Amino acid sequence: MDQNATIKEMAAPEGRVSPAQLVDFVARAFVAAGLPQPDAQTVAGLMVQADLRGSDTHGVIRLPLYVRRLRAGGINVKPNICVLNDRASAALIDGDNGMGHLVMRRATELAIEKAKVTGVGWVGVRMSNHAGPAALYVTMPLAHDMVGLYFAVGSNNHLPPWGGSESLLGTNPMAVAVPALEEPPIVLDMAPTVAAYGKVRLKAQRGEAMPVGWMIDREGKPLTDAKRADEGHLLPIGDYKGYGLSLIIALLAGALNRAAVGREVIDFVKETGKATNTGQAIMAVSIEAFVPPAEFKKTVDGFVRDIRQSKRLPGVERIWLPGEQSHAKQLDRNAHGIPTPKALRESLDAVARELKIAPLN
Amino acid sequence: MDQNATIKEMAAPEGRVSPAQLVDFVARAFVAAGLPQPDAQTVAGLMVQADLRGSDTHGVIRLPLYVRRLRAGGINVKPNICVLNDRASAALIDGDNGMGHLVMRRATELAIEKAKVTGVGWVGVRMSNHAGPAALYVTMPLAHDMVGLYFAVGSNNHLPPWGGSESLLGTNPMAVAVPALEEPPIVLDMAPTVAAYGKVRLKAQRGEAMPVGWMIDREGKPLTDAKRADEGHLLPIGDYKGYGLSLIIALLAGALNRAAVGREVIDFVKETGKATNTGQAIMAVSIEAFVPPAEFKKTVDGFVRDIRQSKRLPGVERIWLPGEQSHAKQLDRNAHGIPTPKALRESLDAVARELKIAPLN
Repeated sequence: MDQNATIKEMAAPEGRVSPAQLVDFVARAFVAAGLPQPDAQTVAGLMVQADLRGSDTHGVIRLPLYVRRLRAGGINVKPNICVLNDRASAALIDGDNGMGHLVMRRATELAIEKAKVTGVGWVGVRMSNHAGPAALYVTMPLAHDMVGLYFAVGSNNHLPPWGGSESLLGTNPMAVAVPALEEPPIVLDMAPTVAAYGKVRLKAQRGEAMPVGWMIDREGKPLTDAKRADEGHLLPIGDYKGYGLSLIIALLAGALNRAAVGREVIDFVKETGKATNTGQAIMAVSIEAFVPPAEFKKTVDGFVRDIRQSKRLPGVERIWLPGEQSHAKQLDRNAHGIPTPKALRESLDAVARELKIAPLN
Repeated sequence: MDQNATIKEMAAPEGRVSPAQLVDFVARAFVAAGLPQPDAQTVAGLMVQADLRGSDTHGVIRLPLYVRRLRAGGINVKPNICVLNDRASAALIDGDNGMGHLVMRRATELAIEKAKVTGVGWVGVRMSNHAGPAALYVTMPLAHDMVGLYFAVGSNNHLPPWGGSESLLGTNPMAVAVPALEEPPIVLDMAPTVAAYGKVRLKAQRGEAMPVGWMIDREGKPLTDAKRADEGHLLPIGDYKGYGLSLIIALLAGALNRAAVGREVIDFVKETGKATNTGQAIMAVSIEAFVPPAEFKKTVDGFVRDIRQSKRLPGVERIWLPGEQSHAKQLDRNAHGIPTPKALRESLDAVARELKIAPLN
């Protein structure tokens, strides 16, 4: 994410809402659900930042679920987030089952502080929760001329081991962000599965079939009926490679932090009253420890342009860099507001009714 | 790799050679090619360790190429490997174009030292060379109750950006190693392409067709004739995801270390007289900084067993963990010697003739 992005006061065109209006609504909802005002504001700001950069599946759309979990006691409204272990370049934070956004923001700030002093900071968290898209945190080090790396244990198990028929692994994301000079930063944010589970849900809602290669059923046969998703499993990228990636991320972001992995992972959508013990890990790496940041960022610009201008396959109009489309969305949405499709509006209105607060204007 | 693996004196059964004999031969070859005796011994030991754990494409089989590059002046026989930047948790090493094994061993030792003090060590290298399989280095931290992470820029460009038709990226590997208690360590060592280029070469040698999905030609059509590999490109895992991974690894292991990326990467097989300026990065993370190592390793054991014993798809006999098959090979080869197929024997004999040294017995 562009670190200069600010949430502006503005009039949004029809079908769109200004970031400030959306932050205000989300913060009011969280206050009504029991969060202290400053925490509500922080989480709302991060959630709207997610929408600004186009993470439509990981931003404000999650508000109803978060509220449900807060009200069911599945998330602690007044957590005592504390540092359990603290070394010069490594720390473990216990999130006390608070909102993941609060826990991860604290962890990222600590990783950046450590990297300033020693060159590298790695902060793991336990007893955290779903924290929105990785991009929110992995891009925070960029403003400090640092590279960010992020690993997280997914909030559901949808992936079996390679050859297996039991989902013991999640769509555990990994993300890396690298700054450029004039070009948008490179932001890779990927799950080790061919399709994200959110995409499967979308296909089910729309009554569309899934392409072969997204999922298999319990016999290993292609599953294309999205409504039957519960009867099958996601497929990993690169066969056994995606399985290995998911497992490694579970170990680095989960087991290393005494967070839930494997059979300990609960379905956070279904078990709203239970703590997830979500594990995440964020790393900040100071560029200056290796090479002058200006020189590095110029190299990134050059590489980006070589790639963008390289020969394309027939029919391909443009070669994109990881994070470039999100960056373009961010520019557009900062200028013109955030689209609020009918289904999103309705779900936010329902939250307002439930919490007895004024709806989003 | 099992840190307890030692290279034993033993009589090898027919078609196999003892690790000690192989180390002796490889070391003699390197001395004849100009390497100082201790360096020759170190590199030979690491190359044979690669063969011991089943990395048949990245171990002793590379001797002829290394010797060719050493004799052509493409690798510096007496490098002054030095630390350019040195922070508490981060360092940049200049390998002075020495053998990659020497550079990476030094880098890994330094990363481990830093992790002992601060919890994390990240050491990047520039002016390095092909260093054999990632597993050699990424497993070194395990004996210190640390996790290892490794990124490297591949020694060739075989991968275009997603949508592109020009190979500006390599099969840049990433590797992660995590120790267990009674179970073999988890070792993930993967390239972001569906197939390794070595597998393509093997298909060409055998006159076999490649499966659809390994490569495309310059028009984007499936390329299955391995003999025409030069006319096409490898495909990334997970489409744009594998492209993103390769790019990110190029930035972390290459650009951050002022090593070659993109158009700067030379073909180390064809341009034997030129320095590759290979970039690699190794990270050591102290488990103790997060959780007591014994507790962590017990958790890994439990997770491994849950996965291994989980329900399998019809027809699947066993679920493997990343690194488990290499571990099994290592036990077998430590006990019974390293297989030396006819083609390998012949190429080693040719090296012996060229260097006027006694052949491998």
